[in-house]
Amino acid sequence: MTEARPTLHHLNVSCQPLTGHTKLMLMLQNSQSMRILWLLEELGIEYDLKLYERYKSGKKQARAPDELKEIHPLGKSPIFVTATGRVLIESEAIVKYLIREYDTSKKFQGDPSTNNDEIRDDILTSFGSTSLNMVMMIETMLQVVVKQSPFFVRPLFKALHSQVHSVYTGSELENSFKFLETELGDQDYFMGTNPGCADFILSWPFDYCVQWKFVDLKKYPKLDQYYARCSDRAAWKRAREKGNGYQLVVG
Amino acid sequence: MTEARPTLHHLNVSCQPLTGHTKLMLMLQNSQSMRILWLLEELGIEYDLKLYERYKSGKKQARAPDELKEIHPLGKSPIFVTATGRVLIESEAIVKYLIREYDTSKKFQGDPSTNNDEIRDDILTSFGSTSLNMVMMIETMLQVVVKQSPFFVRPLFKALHSQVHSVYTGSELENSFKFLETELGDQDYFMGTNPGCADFILSWPFDYCVQWKFVDLKKYPKLDQYYARCSDRAAWKRAREKGNGYQLVVG
Repeated sequence: MTEARPTLHHLNVSCQPLTGHTKLMLMLQNSQSMRILWLLEELGIEYDLKLYERYKSGKKQARAPDELKEIHPLGKSPIFVTATGRVLIESEAIVKYLIREYDTSKKFQGDPSTNNDEIRDDILTSFGSTSLNMVMMIETMLQVVVKQSPFFVRPLFKALHSQVHSVYTGSELENSFKFLETELGDQDYFMGTNPGCADFILSWPFDYCVQWKFVDLKKYPKLDQYYARCSDRAAWKRAREKGNGYQLVVG
Repeated sequence: MTEARPTLHHLNVSCQPLTGHTKLMLMLQNSQSMRILWLLEELGIEYDLKLYERYKSGKKQARAPDELKEIHPLGKSPIFVTATGRVLIESEAIVKYLIREYDTSKKFQGDPSTNNDEIRDDILTSFGSTSLNMVMMIETMLQVVVKQSPFFVRPLFKALHSQVHSVYTGSELENSFKFLETELGDQDYFMGTNPGCADFILSWPFDYCVQWKFVDLKKYPKLDQYYARCSDRAAWKRAREKGNGYQLVVG
């Protein structure tokens, strides 16, 4: 009898040619589970990885396969099933669970005697998964709408995009990265000498904003080095190899 | 000498008449700190409340006042300054801090011997602040854009809205509330006999979706009773009296 192992249900990030509204829908529901895969590799634990592909054509094109709904009613990746069979959703909850459960040497939990404590981890985690995520999704949506609109109405959608960009998304993205540059300071990771929950969570908005060119990291030298440092970790490279694609730009 | 007390910097939710793009901007940055005020009242601790109002006119109409930037560079409410002077942002991080620090009798932490444990709290907290929040913000944005657009282009924006609603926001909102109805089950609160972090965090998307009519709670009898139960708590009522307005519908 083999010991029960946890399972990550991982959906691919798709970049195949898609029709207009499918692109929009996909971009709003793109898979964020690469960061879970990264953490699993960092922890070095035994786990099962189940890869899923989106529908390639038909009415459900780009949607997650119905099989995922059999595991959790919301049917979205990531879904993580613990070794005892409990079904977890939501990246943030999964990252926190994994660190609590498996990081017995406390490598990925900052240093509670410094400012790299739970409070800081919570602030930066929430900042990455709510505030920054919201801005980049709204910016993406508007860009996709402009690109997908028929040429005779495109100027209108362009005007809408430029209005929202000038009063909201443009400055918010800039302020967010300025804030992160200051927060990182001279540390290797947001949580100190090793990544913590905040770093795993922030990897998705970082990858997303870099791939969509929402940010030019050359303007933020500390973040630029940080991003290279994360990408250079052996666990991240293994995660990229095991996952089924990570091309986040749609359309 | 009086003992140092923590301070909540609370920005009002505005509903004054606004111009088009200001409405859009405001709706994307509405204040979410009522839930912090609620929790502070539940905890029954001594704290200072500093109320802020948005600019009423001029180029900065509807924006948060610059004073907030003196407390934290991102200048967004809620900002919570601890009794020792540490500055916290992000609702989720503030709720977690307050519960850890002040809920010494563990009233608001579920029951770790049941399924109302930290894992469940994390899942529902993240679901409220990321997944559900994203869908409702995108739906709001589209509705405001339709309402604010000049009449001769309104049909185009309506078509865009109806497309996104049919493939994404409509079904996502429905699935989200179905999921929450099941998750609540026969409990009084998501975290058991008392609210927990997840309940405090979910109060914002609940209020928002109810006020914007994104959900008809009559279709979800358990959630409907739950919502009434939360609104009926003495601490919630005190929070509403102390906060400066809570009308979330803009436009």
